Amino acid sequence: MEVKPQMTEGSLKSLLKSESADTPSGRIIRTLSERGSLSAAQIARITGLARSTVSTAVADLRRSGLIFDADPPESAESRAIGRPATALRLNPEAGTCIGVHLAIDELRVAAADVSHSVISEQNIPLPLDYGPDLAAQRLKDCIARIYAENGLRQSGLLGVGVSVSAPVSPDGSVHRSAIVPNWAGVNVVSLFGAALETTILIDNESNCSAIAEHMWGAAQGQDNFVLFTVNNGIGSAIMVDGRIVTGLAGGGGEVGHISLDPEGELCRCGNRGCLELRASFGWALLELSRLHGRPISIDAAVAMALHGDAGAIRLISDAAEVAGRGVAILGNILNPPLILISGALAKSGAILLDPLRTSFEKHALLKSRELKPEDRTRIIPGALLANDVVLGAVGLVLRHHGRIG
Amino acid sequence: MEVKPQMTEGSLKSLLKSESADTPSGRIIRTLSERGSLSAAQIARITGLARSTVSTAVADLRRSGLIFDADPPESAESRAIGRPATALRLNPEAGTCIGVHLAIDELRVAAADVSHSVISEQNIPLPLDYGPDLAAQRLKDCIARIYAENGLRQSGLLGVGVSVSAPVSPDGSVHRSAIVPNWAGVNVVSLFGAALETTILIDNESNCSAIAEHMWGAAQGQDNFVLFTVNNGIGSAIMVDGRIVTGLAGGGGEVGHISLDPEGELCRCGNRGCLELRASFGWALLELSRLHGRPISIDAAVAMALHGDAGAIRLISDAAEVAGRGVAILGNILNPPLILISGALAKSGAILLDPLRTSFEKHALLKSRELKPEDRTRIIPGALLANDVVLGAVGLVLRHHGRIG
Repeated sequence: MEVKPQMTEGSLKSLLKSESADTPSGRIIRTLSERGSLSAAQIARITGLARSTVSTAVADLRRSGLIFDADPPESAESRAIGRPATALRLNPEAGTCIGVHLAIDELRVAAADVSHSVISEQNIPLPLDYGPDLAAQRLKDCIARIYAENGLRQSGLLGVGVSVSAPVSPDGSVHRSAIVPNWAGVNVVSLFGAALETTILIDNESNCSAIAEHMWGAAQGQDNFVLFTVNNGIGSAIMVDGRIVTGLAGGGGEVGHISLDPEGELCRCGNRGCLELRASFGWALLELSRLHGRPISIDAAVAMALHGDAGAIRLISDAAEVAGRGVAILGNILNPPLILISGALAKSGAILLDPLRTSFEKHALLKSRELKPEDRTRIIPGALLANDVVLGAVGLVLRHHGRIG
Repeated sequence: MEVKPQMTEGSLKSLLKSESADTPSGRIIRTLSERGSLSAAQIARITGLARSTVSTAVADLRRSGLIFDADPPESAESRAIGRPATALRLNPEAGTCIGVHLAIDELRVAAADVSHSVISEQNIPLPLDYGPDLAAQRLKDCIARIYAENGLRQSGLLGVGVSVSAPVSPDGSVHRSAIVPNWAGVNVVSLFGAALETTILIDNESNCSAIAEHMWGAAQGQDNFVLFTVNNGIGSAIMVDGRIVTGLAGGGGEVGHISLDPEGELCRCGNRGCLELRASFGWALLELSRLHGRPISIDAAVAMALHGDAGAIRLISDAAEVAGRGVAILGNILNPPLILISGALAKSGAILLDPLRTSFEKHALLKSRELKPEDRTRIIPGALLANDVVLGAVGLVLRHHGRIG
């Protein structure tokens, strides 16, 4: 069948819009956009639609070229043996998405299509403490370049997902407790929306990481999990029944600012004795840099640990002990089947994970030793440590956290 | 239309069974059982079924006598003005449920029908440290008495919901960290199921409180909230999108055993420095009893505080400061729109709530003063402080947390 991409784009956007989202076709499109490829039976289960309703709508969507069979049916013989269900997938020509992570000194940009294929990844260096206007301009240029280089039409852009290292309010404003002070109070949805003339979806860094791990990484097929990030800061994200718990004001998952010691030292957030002060690696890097007489980055410290540097290993182990207390707090509150550890420090593997798991077991209420194997929380590293945040920003669009215009 | 209760009961049970739960009728029955009364439009929104599918199924269910119009349509004139949607409700004759709370020295028992009307409440005194067999026998006698006194047929019993003051594993076993040592490791589902010859559903005390507040109390219509209980122990429950987060092993909401001080005093749970040690009222009661030279119960202490006793007020205020830290931890992790405070200490009203709110504001990451009014978490007392736990145990059956046989 011939695909008519122009028509497909328009049809897809209208099906992703909130007005038409409640039709069976709209729900199927949204579910495929979120999950990648699914069988008709899986679609029925996830959407709650009757099987017959799904069949009818899928047939219409197939005819319009919006969805494809991801795996063409095998020969009659092999079908008779294994009876593999046909997986459905959105037509990659039906639309593209951009994700951008506002990192400390660069923009990390990724482009993907609605079939979940990543088309391009780019890093755009920026001065430290860059502001919103510069970021919007550089992002606009970068998107134009990606689309030109890959022969894509900008009319196919469904939206831009933005990840920031701070809680974000439901209307798209960065809360004051931001890592990048220039951004505090900025409404990124309005500002980027005006500059890029497209729909902007925004969430914080940890929520984006969790979305990426759910779509492409270590949490595929697992709709209930917690992600815990150990970086220069501490973050977390909570997925319950396939949805991120963003919270009323965007403050969900802010485990780093749990006050462990109300008489402790002042934190950048305005509270005292926060988990982040000792569980994150900011403080450890100062100590390591002082010892070696030169500034040492978190990635360099991880490399040193992996090469056997006893000081770096000890600092990671110390952070892991406190981080494990934070993970145990999440464990006591949510008792999830899976906890993913992400962030730069997770790249050290067992150097972080072993003491962190020991600390978790010590501080959690339900001890692994008393639970049946299937009732034990699994703590494993994320699978996308290099680029989870920017991929998750793409995922914001694919999951249409908000409205696609 | 004449109702045929015998047939209705059988039909209802079959629609509540997991095998048939995925038909439109099954989903509608489950939703009405959980929510009480709903319009057809609300049913469509909650179940995800198409409006036309709901209409067809509702017509069938009406004909079979399983569901009723809760509010008969008004005159043509008033309909034309306000157009109130007809609310649908399960036929109260279609089935009944029992809830029981295994309290420290008594069984609290309630009976309700599937239309959410409470039929009877009873307290059965038992010796301290009573065991499972005695409880099952007394409960069996009590149920027989309630059904006889109210002219109900025991064949209409859909199931018994059980609330225990400890985390419960998915298979219905009480975890070792129980308040009542006689119950540790007991599989209540098997034991009560055999004794009572009906379906047993079980959850911990705080989850039951939250279910009751959602069905009948201060969280009606609010599908995302946290309940925090201040008693001789500390508990909490988390509802996300209308479902309780029970956790993989039943450990969800165990905020009381978050270790605030890993070098602190040993807790009954085997950890050190748990929130519960200072936020609950167990320790305060020892101090108050010592001061007055006689044992003082938590209810007596609340009464003293309400009559102006400075010592009792101070102890509640001290507990509130620590409890507020716990509530802030839940706030930082979940950022819910609503936090209900329940438990015996909540009966002291502002004596507990005012310092607790102050402590929450101090320790939370997102400060109310910086948020728009609609983005602020509301902290209010529960509405069912006298009997939330036992009503929630009834609610376990109405919400069919598990399977109804």
